[in-house]
Amino acid sequence: MSRIYERVAYIGLGLIASSMIHAGRRAGLQGEITGTARSAETRAIAREDGLCDIVAETAVEAVKDADLVVLCVPVGAMGRVAEEIGPHLKPGCTVTDVGSVKRAVIDAVAPHMPEGVHFIPAHPLAGTEHSGPRSGFAELFQNRYTLIVPDGDVDPAALSRLEQFWVGLGANVEVMDPEHHDLVLMVTSHAPHLIAYTMVGVADDLRRVTDSEVIKYSAAGFRDFTRIAASDPTMWRDVFLNNKDATMEILGRFIEELMSLQRAIRKGDGDLLFDYFTRTRAIRRGIIEAGQDTDAPDFGRGKGAKE
Amino acid sequence: MSRIYERVAYIGLGLIASSMIHAGRRAGLQGEITGTARSAETRAIAREDGLCDIVAETAVEAVKDADLVVLCVPVGAMGRVAEEIGPHLKPGCTVTDVGSVKRAVIDAVAPHMPEGVHFIPAHPLAGTEHSGPRSGFAELFQNRYTLIVPDGDVDPAALSRLEQFWVGLGANVEVMDPEHHDLVLMVTSHAPHLIAYTMVGVADDLRRVTDSEVIKYSAAGFRDFTRIAASDPTMWRDVFLNNKDATMEILGRFIEELMSLQRAIRKGDGDLLFDYFTRTRAIRRGIIEAGQDTDAPDFGRGKGAKE
Repeated sequence: MSRIYERVAYIGLGLIASSMIHAGRRAGLQGEITGTARSAETRAIAREDGLCDIVAETAVEAVKDADLVVLCVPVGAMGRVAEEIGPHLKPGCTVTDVGSVKRAVIDAVAPHMPEGVHFIPAHPLAGTEHSGPRSGFAELFQNRYTLIVPDGDVDPAALSRLEQFWVGLGANVEVMDPEHHDLVLMVTSHAPHLIAYTMVGVADDLRRVTDSEVIKYSAAGFRDFTRIAASDPTMWRDVFLNNKDATMEILGRFIEELMSLQRAIRKGDGDLLFDYFTRTRAIRRGIIEAGQDTDAPDFGRGKGAKE
Repeated sequence: MSRIYERVAYIGLGLIASSMIHAGRRAGLQGEITGTARSAETRAIAREDGLCDIVAETAVEAVKDADLVVLCVPVGAMGRVAEEIGPHLKPGCTVTDVGSVKRAVIDAVAPHMPEGVHFIPAHPLAGTEHSGPRSGFAELFQNRYTLIVPDGDVDPAALSRLEQFWVGLGANVEVMDPEHHDLVLMVTSHAPHLIAYTMVGVADDLRRVTDSEVIKYSAAGFRDFTRIAASDPTMWRDVFLNNKDATMEILGRFIEELMSLQRAIRKGDGDLLFDYFTRTRAIRRGIIEAGQDTDAPDFGRGKGAKE
């Protein structure tokens, strides 16, 4: 794989950025790597580990002369960073991001992008429950999808270059529009997270079942709900606040569906339950056939098969 | 470990029964093993594999002279089997079961137990998504809890013997009353299953997100919901129909809680979301500290750590 960008700047040095840096370095995709983070501690660690060639004190410094700028901050912070770096971007450069929602990020970032800069949002569908500059690893994106999510027309050469970059990082790349992205991700990721948070919250509230009982007897299904519900609170708060419409829609549908199953249970309608539970098996089979899961569950942690 | 029961009869030869047979044989806990299953195919497999010393054609034959009878049929079939075998049980023997709900099983089985027979329900909190006479393995109960759930007073010698049997099979044993059992299991197992079924159903119904999209992009959280939602429909239908009160209560609480998070999202109350998502982390830490999980999620499949 040959070099795709001469100089790449990472704003935010957490799990995704550090994984991109490792994967890109291994494949020789990027010339000089600059990076910065809001926290002095993160910058110090990045310097100590040699994570970037240059660790800048500010985002403005970091983006200087960069051919690709990757925004790796929480969704709620994207607008502020874009405003800050906008006037300092190199003409003709590409700005991308890795946020979990796209419409809100586009609305926050695009107004600050100067004429001649290519803003092409993206979203790698990969992650673990860990974070920080030392949590990254080069294999994170292997065999995972990265969605490129442009808002309307973009420069085809800039788009193709970003696609090649992600393919070089190991990802399967697809292009999708922002509204559809936000709906698909609501179903496959955001709603499951919210529901897991809720279930764990209910268990915690239920004083007649003690915490220690929940903990001791959690083997039978509850355990992995708690794994999801241990995800980063800041990130998830921002996701839900910035994808309100899709969240409202799916939650409405979910509650409706749950109430219809509740009614079937109350009325003792065993056939409805049996048919419903049988129907949901097909999706599972589809996922296994699509090669997106093995016998080893990993709850979206992106490390691929364990066996 | 020395022999605890001379003759043990298993009614139903699925995952739990075959695992009990393998574990009990390895530990030398049982003398002669008889077994039966409703399906001729299962009986043929059991004969071919030498799973039991004697494979009987009927439950009545199987329980003859047995010191311990283990009911391993779906919860909805327990009453019928109990009625059938009641008159043929050996005086002084113990009858137990492995059903996931206890009040309904007790109400269905107890009336058919003759004077002098000790009926002591139990529930091993272990399982995999596989089933049938070839799905069992001796390690299934290792480091998992088995709850002994007597309804009122029982003969202390019979209780102690059954406890020793389960300890010999590898389980941690605790005694709990039926109502509390049904509530705890609703929280730790039944509700998570129902919610996973619902989420997968919603995804399937949502025609604007295609099945193939759900499948392709399922890495980010949804995947393991589909794993749960692939569980045995008959077993789960019976569980919900036979634990109605607890199901209704938890579903009501769950919907209430989900609606309050929905309201917070609609109103943009980020603090509430952040606090809620932070609070749920504590339970996760508790589970890891209690030694009931490792970094390898297995969604209650009971095989223990993978690494």
